[in-house]
Amino acid sequence: MQVILIGSGNTATVLGRKIKEEGHDVLQVWSRDLSHAKPLAEELDARPETSLKSLGKADIYIIAVPDDAIENVASQLDLHNHLVVHTAGSVSKDALQKASRNFGVLYPLQSLRKEIPVIPEIPFLVDGNTSDDLTLIYDFAETISKRVTVATDEERKKLHLSAVIVSNFSNHLFAIAEEYCKKSKSDFSLLYPLINEIASRIEFESPAKLQTGPAVRNDLETLRNHEELLKDHPEIKNLYALFTKSIQEFYR
Amino acid sequence: MQVILIGSGNTATVLGRKIKEEGHDVLQVWSRDLSHAKPLAEELDARPETSLKSLGKADIYIIAVPDDAIENVASQLDLHNHLVVHTAGSVSKDALQKASRNFGVLYPLQSLRKEIPVIPEIPFLVDGNTSDDLTLIYDFAETISKRVTVATDEERKKLHLSAVIVSNFSNHLFAIAEEYCKKSKSDFSLLYPLINEIASRIEFESPAKLQTGPAVRNDLETLRNHEELLKDHPEIKNLYALFTKSIQEFYR
Repeated sequence: MQVILIGSGNTATVLGRKIKEEGHDVLQVWSRDLSHAKPLAEELDARPETSLKSLGKADIYIIAVPDDAIENVASQLDLHNHLVVHTAGSVSKDALQKASRNFGVLYPLQSLRKEIPVIPEIPFLVDGNTSDDLTLIYDFAETISKRVTVATDEERKKLHLSAVIVSNFSNHLFAIAEEYCKKSKSDFSLLYPLINEIASRIEFESPAKLQTGPAVRNDLETLRNHEELLKDHPEIKNLYALFTKSIQEFYR
Repeated sequence: MQVILIGSGNTATVLGRKIKEEGHDVLQVWSRDLSHAKPLAEELDARPETSLKSLGKADIYIIAVPDDAIENVASQLDLHNHLVVHTAGSVSKDALQKASRNFGVLYPLQSLRKEIPVIPEIPFLVDGNTSDDLTLIYDFAETISKRVTVATDEERKKLHLSAVIVSNFSNHLFAIAEEYCKKSKSDFSLLYPLINEIASRIEFESPAKLQTGPAVRNDLETLRNHEELLKDHPEIKNLYALFTKSIQEFYR
């Protein structure tokens, strides 16, 4: 397929790499800022472009810009019948109505960062304005991923919310622990195997059945010790207390 | 080495398997309850035992019982000069003073569950009452792990607190998301690749530099959408609000 990428951030970059890797052609990379469009276009053997009016013809146009810019970008496109998709979890497909009669969603349910050397497995949630659009988007997604699922706007928004909880919030816990380790001169990297284990074992058993720690076993002495250790870290202490309460209510 | 295991729960079971796998002999497995001691003893080709007074001689005695039972179990042992360790993150090594003159800590910085089919990588934090004890414990730990670090009681307690944050709390986020997926008829397993990516990529880059999501980019529309989606889930809404605030303060 011939692809035009609209955007040059993390999502555009990683999807562009994956798309090229699977044998498609990326023709153009658009960004408002030429200094952003150019390096990605070069990497993908595409042409950089800064005017939405100067985009050429392609089989699929992929809009990967910040959520709140999607509708504005779409309104500046005039693609007639050409297929256009956005890649956002929380934005309705109807944000693309002004761009073309054929539109849909190609949402990667993954955290994509251009600086990570290995492209992770990316499940896609797809949607289309018509069943023909949906079939085209589904088939395209299958060329770049082993896991493609049809999801409506509502279904996608709920999975996006779950994704925020399991990824953004977990990552924040890691960031907090890393900061605490720095302040207490502990080696945060000692926790890597534990973090990996917690993430990978939920494929064997439900996380609700795997909960461990002082909160779930109501180990008051350890809970008190931890509170004492956190007396100079009020923001962590706050999160710690809320988690303890939330865990204890969940398993009551 | 000849090992006697005191305890038959998750830690005793997984450490017992690892110790046997690396060529040591587990002679006896103690539990208060014979029906607990017996299956683990059978698996490890050891003898089950329910009396702490009937333990034989061994090179190392490993106490892997609940934190609040360690001191009590230790006080019933009379091991003279035989080396005894506990495996707890938050309990001082001095809890073993009554058991023997030679004691220390062999703390696995990992979440160990007997039902998980693959034994994960286990970093150990070790401590000893004397430098000879420490050397013995360190050398033993090195036979079952590639990553052994000396840590005092205080250092170990801080890493244990960090471990609670990155593992128990993350797992709770996964459990909450799984429950939300069930209620909203989403497929939680679609999130496995994302969860794995979040956990594994922190080895490439600090989590503080990898934070993404609506909170850190102050995407008010998505934050409002999520609040609306959670209106019938007050406990998740509460956590969501606290994380949003905590993330925004962390990156201010």
